[in-house]
Amino acid sequence: MVAVGSGVPRLRWTTTTGGTLRDVRAATIVDNRLAVAAHPDPQPGAGEVLVRVHGAGINGADLLQVRGLYPAPPGSPQDIPGMELAGEVVALGRSATRFRAGDRVMAVVGGGGQAELAVVHERLLMRVPDGVDWAQAGGFPETFTTAHDALFTQASLRMGERVLIHGAAGGVGIAGVELAHLAGAHVCASVRSQRLRPDVARLGANLVIAPDEFTTHGPFDVILELVGAPNLAGNLEALALCGRIVVIGIGAGARAEIDLGVLMGKRGLLMASTLRARSLEEKAVCARRIEAEVLPALADGRLSVPIAATYSLEDVQGAYDRFAAGDKLGKVVLEVVPALP
Amino acid sequence: MVAVGSGVPRLRWTTTTGGTLRDVRAATIVDNRLAVAAHPDPQPGAGEVLVRVHGAGINGADLLQVRGLYPAPPGSPQDIPGMELAGEVVALGRSATRFRAGDRVMAVVGGGGQAELAVVHERLLMRVPDGVDWAQAGGFPETFTTAHDALFTQASLRMGERVLIHGAAGGVGIAGVELAHLAGAHVCASVRSQRLRPDVARLGANLVIAPDEFTTHGPFDVILELVGAPNLAGNLEALALCGRIVVIGIGAGARAEIDLGVLMGKRGLLMASTLRARSLEEKAVCARRIEAEVLPALADGRLSVPIAATYSLEDVQGAYDRFAAGDKLGKVVLEVVPALP
Repeated sequence: MVAVGSGVPRLRWTTTTGGTLRDVRAATIVDNRLAVAAHPDPQPGAGEVLVRVHGAGINGADLLQVRGLYPAPPGSPQDIPGMELAGEVVALGRSATRFRAGDRVMAVVGGGGQAELAVVHERLLMRVPDGVDWAQAGGFPETFTTAHDALFTQASLRMGERVLIHGAAGGVGIAGVELAHLAGAHVCASVRSQRLRPDVARLGANLVIAPDEFTTHGPFDVILELVGAPNLAGNLEALALCGRIVVIGIGAGARAEIDLGVLMGKRGLLMASTLRARSLEEKAVCARRIEAEVLPALADGRLSVPIAATYSLEDVQGAYDRFAAGDKLGKVVLEVVPALP
Repeated sequence: MVAVGSGVPRLRWTTTTGGTLRDVRAATIVDNRLAVAAHPDPQPGAGEVLVRVHGAGINGADLLQVRGLYPAPPGSPQDIPGMELAGEVVALGRSATRFRAGDRVMAVVGGGGQAELAVVHERLLMRVPDGVDWAQAGGFPETFTTAHDALFTQASLRMGERVLIHGAAGGVGIAGVELAHLAGAHVCASVRSQRLRPDVARLGANLVIAPDEFTTHGPFDVILELVGAPNLAGNLEALALCGRIVVIGIGAGARAEIDLGVLMGKRGLLMASTLRARSLEEKAVCARRIEAEVLPALADGRLSVPIAATYSLEDVQGAYDRFAAGDKLGKVVLEVVPALP
């Protein structure tokens, strides 16, 4: 838990269970593929915490980053993917006071989560509720924070409102369905895979539909767009008066025609966002909101984190292949077991 | 001030100056032109107030209505235009308590304002500050309410932010420039007419530019779009991080391509609205906000209502012709002088 061996250029961290990590292994992007490679130990700076990672979910942005299409923001490792992690605190940087060694924590991070050790600013960390295992905790932060921010902070979804979630069987989609249901909204979920529709209904969707039929089920007060521009015209058509469209996924395309006259008539809002490029303080505000509004429901079981599959760090390429193949319900999570000396 | 002559099918209203209005004259749409015609006296219902109109501004929506392109909302006269008025209270409907006979009032109305008498719900009425004449009061409500709602209620403009106002020499544009300046924002005004640019600068714009150069003056936190879809791509380009585009005028076109990826990267908001179709309670909320936030500045002279020209009710077609000709700064207002018996 403290640095060992003065004069040694690289720090060594003793885990709470007594072992020492010497070479930190991390998922590493090499030629648009993934391998496991040794990296210098990350060192917590002021206000930062060193976390021994136990679970780290895979997200769409990781896939884009591996393919060279989405560079990590400044300050995050460029070659170690991973936008979320869960693990235990093993060391504190200067002036870090929120946690103690051994605390179970999780966070959205700018990158570098898929490794044995990661440095995270303490303001981004959330406590993992008792009873939530490492796979669930490692697969929770990114999708639930993204969905919560889009539905509630941005679109101000309220109980009784009708929400349409496009791409509802994906990671953010599932989180959106669960959160909107929990908040008392009426949830319509658009899901391409017929096979997965009953699962999405079980997670809280009042109505699960095929992607091409959503305009007949409106009007919707809030539309969470996780697919892209091809839905825009239909979204405008299906939007309720004073409705809000939130775009946070554009995998199917970014450009579309928009009729501003229709938007005026609906008095509508079209908003779009990403989480990753935000400042530390903005991300910290998101974390505080999740702690206050969402973690109680994760703790008592009203929210679940469906896990499609877990993989060891060594099989990171297999995990990404599984993630990219789609047609799954729930997260693909790396379970990181430390190689003790 | 009270109904006279029981058994008479049409009510007669005595003005506070002692005269009696027998045939209410009103600007009247006939074959897409304007004439003055007699109409049945409007009768105030529960919560409504009868107003003897002294000033009634002309707005773009009136012009569209005359041309048959913008029907009045249900409950408003279809053939009498006029979306704003100022005048004195001459009678109260049942349970109307906010005003007394003789009070000087003004309001945004759904239609019917360009007439000797108009019925207005008391929750929509605002008191006319002392020292504000009838032409100013009659030309104030629509443009200032529209601009205030767009800039502050919708786009949450704050002091120190940079705002771009397209079409800034128009009625709503002028109101937007004045209000944004008053609120401590940095105002960039786009004005087509070179001749009018110095006037717009005098009203509070920090920078007045030609319409084709706005993308070089960003980034803007808020963009007030009063021209239309042709500006959309440039607006997105010139938008600041977390910027807001508010569309309330689309005279130059409604359809444009939008790049949702750019909007995501900017974490931008595109909103669009109209005032006229709103519910009574929504319009009443707007009126309360104007009373609280704007009327103090109108009362003490920090805000002005530039008047381009005034016309008598008899010359209503001339007034509309002047309005349609453009290249003016300020409102065209009908001054209504009652024809006393």
